[in-house]
Amino acid sequence: MARMTDSARVEAFSDGVFAIAITLLILEIRVPTARTGLDLWHALGDEWPSYSAYVVSFMVIGVMWVNHHTIFSYIARVDRTLIFLNLVLLLVVAALPFPTALVAQNLREPQASNVAVAVYGAVMVGHAATMALFWYYVTRTGHCFDDRVDIRAARATRARFSLGLVVYPATVALAFASAVLALAVHFVLAVYYAFNQTPVPTLSPEDR
Amino acid sequence: MARMTDSARVEAFSDGVFAIAITLLILEIRVPTARTGLDLWHALGDEWPSYSAYVVSFMVIGVMWVNHHTIFSYIARVDRTLIFLNLVLLLVVAALPFPTALVAQNLREPQASNVAVAVYGAVMVGHAATMALFWYYVTRTGHCFDDRVDIRAARATRARFSLGLVVYPATVALAFASAVLALAVHFVLAVYYAFNQTPVPTLSPEDR
Amino acid sequence: MARMTDSARVEAFSDGVFAIAITLLILEIRVPTARTGLDLWHALGDEWPSYSAYVVSFMVIGVMWVNHHTIFSYIARVDRTLIFLNLVLLLVVAALPFPTALVAQNLREPQASNVAVAVYGAVMVGHAATMALFWYYVTRTGHCFDDRVDIRAARATRARFSLGLVVYPATVALAFASAVLALAVHFVLAVYYAFNQTPVPTLSPEDR
Amino acid sequence: MARMTDSARVEAFSDGVFAIAITLLILEIRVPTARTGLDLWHALGDEWPSYSAYVVSFMVIGVMWVNHHTIFSYIARVDRTLIFLNLVLLLVVAALPFPTALVAQNLREPQASNVAVAVYGAVMVGHAATMALFWYYVTRTGHCFDDRVDIRAARATRARFSLGLVVYPATVALAFASAVLALAVHFVLAVYYAFNQTPVPTLSPEDR
Repeated sequence: MARMTDSARVEAFSDGVFAIAITLLILEIRVPTARTGLDLWHALGDEWPSYSAYVVSFMVIGVMWVNHHTIFSYIARVDRTLIFLNLVLLLVVAALPFPTALVAQNLREPQASNVAVAVYGAVMVGHAATMALFWYYVTRTGHCFDDRVDIRAARATRARFSLGLVVYPATVALAFASAVLALAVHFVLAVYYAFNQTPVPTLSPEDR
Repeated sequence: MARMTDSARVEAFSDGVFAIAITLLILEIRVPTARTGLDLWHALGDEWPSYSAYVVSFMVIGVMWVNHHTIFSYIARVDRTLIFLNLVLLLVVAALPFPTALVAQNLREPQASNVAVAVYGAVMVGHAATMALFWYYVTRTGHCFDDRVDIRAARATRARFSLGLVVYPATVALAFASAVLALAVHFVLAVYYAFNQTPVPTLSPEDR
Repeated sequence: MARMTDSARVEAFSDGVFAIAITLLILEIRVPTARTGLDLWHALGDEWPSYSAYVVSFMVIGVMWVNHHTIFSYIARVDRTLIFLNLVLLLVVAALPFPTALVAQNLREPQASNVAVAVYGAVMVGHAATMALFWYYVTRTGHCFDDRVDIRAARATRARFSLGLVVYPATVALAFASAVLALAVHFVLAVYYAFNQTPVPTLSPEDR
Repeated sequence: MARMTDSARVEAFSDGVFAIAITLLILEIRVPTARTGLDLWHALGDEWPSYSAYVVSFMVIGVMWVNHHTIFSYIARVDRTLIFLNLVLLLVVAALPFPTALVAQNLREPQASNVAVAVYGAVMVGHAATMALFWYYVTRTGHCFDDRVDIRAARATRARFSLGLVVYPATVALAFASAVLALAVHFVLAVYYAFNQTPVPTLSPEDR
């Protein structure tokens, strides 16, 4: 007779959106056809921007999921505002296949590639903004957290949680200098965040 | 050895359909390619109807999910009729990517835009109708509810739960006056319903 | 620390496949664009085969899910053979968007429509066959069932569970007489099965 | 108030990716239209490479899921590295619809077919590599396993778990001799692995 808590249900729905967005990415890669084997190798080789964009966005969405999931593991209750802010956050996550395809299809074009990767970076700025807003809200009163969380300390992490609002605008600027480099930076940032997420501060058991 | 209750399983299946429908929306946005950066900016700018339709439908489906989920949190048992009515409800929800794409692709065309947004409104009428039918059924005998629900009071909310059957036909009419305005009204209604869903009336603990 | 049983996990995976297949159906409907409102109405009207195919397949997959779910609610244990047979069953379920699109795109063509709906029926024969095979296996020794099930009586339902192997071939034949009528029969059968699934026979509590 | 363990949550997310990837496969089959019934039969017959690729990849991803799920049923705890390695594993799984479509669209072309099936095999090599890496990590210290697992014996299975690193490169070579034969071998291997996965060694209850 297991019935999930409300926060577990919101998390399961969010997990679904993350899982679908990440799996849809592959649909953006054009499938080449050719007469000869050599032609097919060439056609496959020409699609390196698609493979790059796929790998970068897969890791980006995957790490977004990990971090979203880590935060939700400390959330015990949800209210309408939290659900709404989470929906806005998912709106940006679910949009990522679009800039991914944009990069994939314009990366070989010297000038258009800058714009495409800049748009990619702008969507990441949007993600950082919705994440910061979400974190600002849950740390404001702390009423959604379970009792392990040190609310005062959690509030103090807001600046570090909002770091993306500085880093991602910088990738937008970088995109105009070098599209490929900016895309690589998105990959490196994803891997970095996979191992170095700002931890949610917790109380020692006797202080709960 | 956790095994979900039947109602939890129906809800999980429904959650899946909501999550997939909401994440498929992004596939409807055409990915432009261009030679120069300026051309790509222009091509991206030309797709404002797609972005608008994406944002509106994302919030619409998201709020449908929230409200569906709230109702199911009071449902303890399911029968064949409830499963069937829920399936009809999901049929309309899963159809929403179609009118969304229709609006996205016709919103810049002065005359066709009215028809597109009217069709969007008509699908929302369909949603309101299936939701009203569902609510009518579960409040009729109340045998699917858990014991927190005040069945008599729940039955009295039928009119308010069916308000969409008045509001959404009005958006269809409005679409012929102004397509963009009618689309904006759908967005505003979604945000309104995110915070102001008719609550399911509950009994005080001693009356259960 | 809830961990789902193995059978719950197989069911959750299956639920995912059902939910995705049912939600992908909408992608098969072509989105028309037009200059004038009248042209858009006409273009939308011309797509009635797509709407019909969508509604029929949505109900068909939905009811397949309900019945799959009902059977799994009596399954407590899974083995490799059951998982394999379930995978073959899902292979056919996940294929349904293909005959659905085939019907949608050929239903207005007098001759091709017969073939399209016959192929649809053939896929349903495949579904009935994989379902019968699955049921044959789980009722053979009954080792996967929980202790509510009357295995001897369950084995006796095999013929009724295999009824689809008679009914669906008949729809294939009917498709060559009238494509639209055969499609309507698929809809009627789905609604019929929604309310009249052969029940899994259970033991009275004292006989378990 | 059931809340899933962290490992259950990672598994649920992975299950979602598997379920979506397997269900997206059907989208790769082109839907033919025709005037006459005979033309439609021919057009449908011409797509045998698509049907073959669908069936092979459905079983391949399905069996990948079964085996992934079996391993996770012994995992009680997750850390950042395990989540990261699992993400890399899913990146390859979610990519499979691409080589599937590549095979489907090039299998009838004598020369291009060899390249297409070789690429398919190469993606399978990638899967075997990420699986071996994952298994290497979890058996290194065994800190993620639950207490049923015989860690020493599990470490000894590394070579057998890495067998794919020998078998799948061989399918790449075979693809250049016969594309169709190599594809058939992928199907046979999937069915073989469905019933003959290397078991996770467990301790007898008194040794835990």
